Amino acid sequence: MEGFRFIHRQPIVLRDIDGFGHVNNAVYLTYIENARVAYLAKVFEARAIAEIRNIMASITVNFRAPAAYGEIAEVGVRVDRIGTRSFTLAHEIWNGGDRLLADATSVQVMYDYERAATIDFPQDWLALVERFEGVKRHPDGSLLPSG
Amino acid sequence: MEGFRFIHRQPIVLRDIDGFGHVNNAVYLTYIENARVAYLAKVFEARAIAEIRNIMASITVNFRAPAAYGEIAEVGVRVDRIGTRSFTLAHEIWNGGDRLLADATSVQVMYDYERAATIDFPQDWLALVERFEGVKRHPDGSLLPSG
Amino acid sequence: MEGFRFIHRQPIVLRDIDGFGHVNNAVYLTYIENARVAYLAKVFEARAIAEIRNIMASITVNFRAPAAYGEIAEVGVRVDRIGTRSFTLAHEIWNGGDRLLADATSVQVMYDYERAATIDFPQDWLALVERFEGVKRHPDGSLLPSG
Amino acid sequence: MEGFRFIHRQPIVLRDIDGFGHVNNAVYLTYIENARVAYLAKVFEARAIAEIRNIMASITVNFRAPAAYGEIAEVGVRVDRIGTRSFTLAHEIWNGGDRLLADATSVQVMYDYERAATIDFPQDWLALVERFEGVKRHPDGSLLPSG
Repeated sequence: MEGFRFIHRQPIVLRDIDGFGHVNNAVYLTYIENARVAYLAKVFEARAIAEIRNIMASITVNFRAPAAYGEIAEVGVRVDRIGTRSFTLAHEIWNGGDRLLADATSVQVMYDYERAATIDFPQDWLALVERFEGVKRHPDGSLLPSG
Repeated sequence: MEGFRFIHRQPIVLRDIDGFGHVNNAVYLTYIENARVAYLAKVFEARAIAEIRNIMASITVNFRAPAAYGEIAEVGVRVDRIGTRSFTLAHEIWNGGDRLLADATSVQVMYDYERAATIDFPQDWLALVERFEGVKRHPDGSLLPSG
Repeated sequence: MEGFRFIHRQPIVLRDIDGFGHVNNAVYLTYIENARVAYLAKVFEARAIAEIRNIMASITVNFRAPAAYGEIAEVGVRVDRIGTRSFTLAHEIWNGGDRLLADATSVQVMYDYERAATIDFPQDWLALVERFEGVKRHPDGSLLPSG
Repeated sequence: MEGFRFIHRQPIVLRDIDGFGHVNNAVYLTYIENARVAYLAKVFEARAIAEIRNIMASITVNFRAPAAYGEIAEVGVRVDRIGTRSFTLAHEIWNGGDRLLADATSVQVMYDYERAATIDFPQDWLALVERFEGVKRHPDGSLLPSG
């Protein structure tokens, strides 16, 4: 998979399959959730999920090919944009081989559960993303190669 | 369905079906959970799930026939036994017609989440069960017709 | 809910809730799937799911507010556009009251499973949609009020 | 985990957790299903799930302790008994450490999907189980150490 430094491997199990014999559409969101949480834990060094103060505001998924039982879904995750109070993730899901199953884009909003209010994207998280992805944030929020 | 005064109707949806074209075994536990919660809410007059202080200690499920998409699972629930700190539920799941899909027995333990300790089955709950089911609790915990 | 002639009611059950105490994001796709199938069955008069020859190509979901256990998700569905070989559905999910939980747009592609090939949107289905929604299809695929 | 030659590791993900903050009861059946399929694939050398001709007839699960997000469920599987047309599996689920989460016993019936009829437990499968588990089948169906 090109363009992703972080890839989460997700075995496709029987319960993920629906009556049409393929991975059910809703299950893709669970694959993406698992990959996102693993990404945030690794890149943002958040040890507990409670520390990852963000909520998904929107997601677009393009279903490219059906996935079958026994395949390993490989889910790429990277940060594509960092706004003042939100960030955008890009995702691709491959079948463990050369078949693209889906790609997706999601927007997460930084959120303080205790105060029940949106908060700014933390400056120290920005440095962690830039280092992990090898990018530099531009004033418009886009992330471009730093090299 | 004979022997049940409480029946919970549960439409079988696409996500419940697995790759073999039938309702997945694990989904039966969700049907039973939904029916149990509805039973407790009705019979014990518990308005919030937080008030229903019990946890499932064990369950036995006998799978009798496969269930298909589009059928309505009808889940019967009744209390079969009330111990000092636990109670036993009997369940049957029919397909909305004359086909028995599964039957099950589960044991719930009364539990105080705040104190993290088991507690006695409340006396006022006993009266509610006896009235709803038309039974009388015997010293050994069994419930027999009160008439 | 304004703007929808078809609304599917979906009780929110315990299994839909995640560790944050709200309906999990992935579950929204299941709610939308259930509503879509019910819509297609009603409007296109497809009796068996096998007759509904279409597959989801993409979906965008905007999460507007969290949903809690015990609420009834009301899912509105309507056809917004009919292309040569695809159609677009609009969805809104409300909490049974005045809180919008999510809105979504999905694109479905007409597909012949046996021939494994895309097919044209059937002319007789077009008439069924126009009648049910009270709209008229324009050459660009958009559906506008017919009155 | 003592007494199991086969252990299936299953990461506990966010979607497995319910509103009480623990792994939902129904999810245990999915963990057991995943472990059972992996066991059958390994011990019976069944390459495709279609070759594993058996259906679950019943299961008993004892819930011993709650499981939390981030733990790794370790699911032990072994054959405990082989009847003429069925076999019994024993399961234990640990939290990746020293906490037993659940134990379970399930009965599977050998089944020929094409003929829609029960069939005898294959003699060559018996040899495979005896070799893997280091046991010998007795006339009553029980499996005892062969050494």
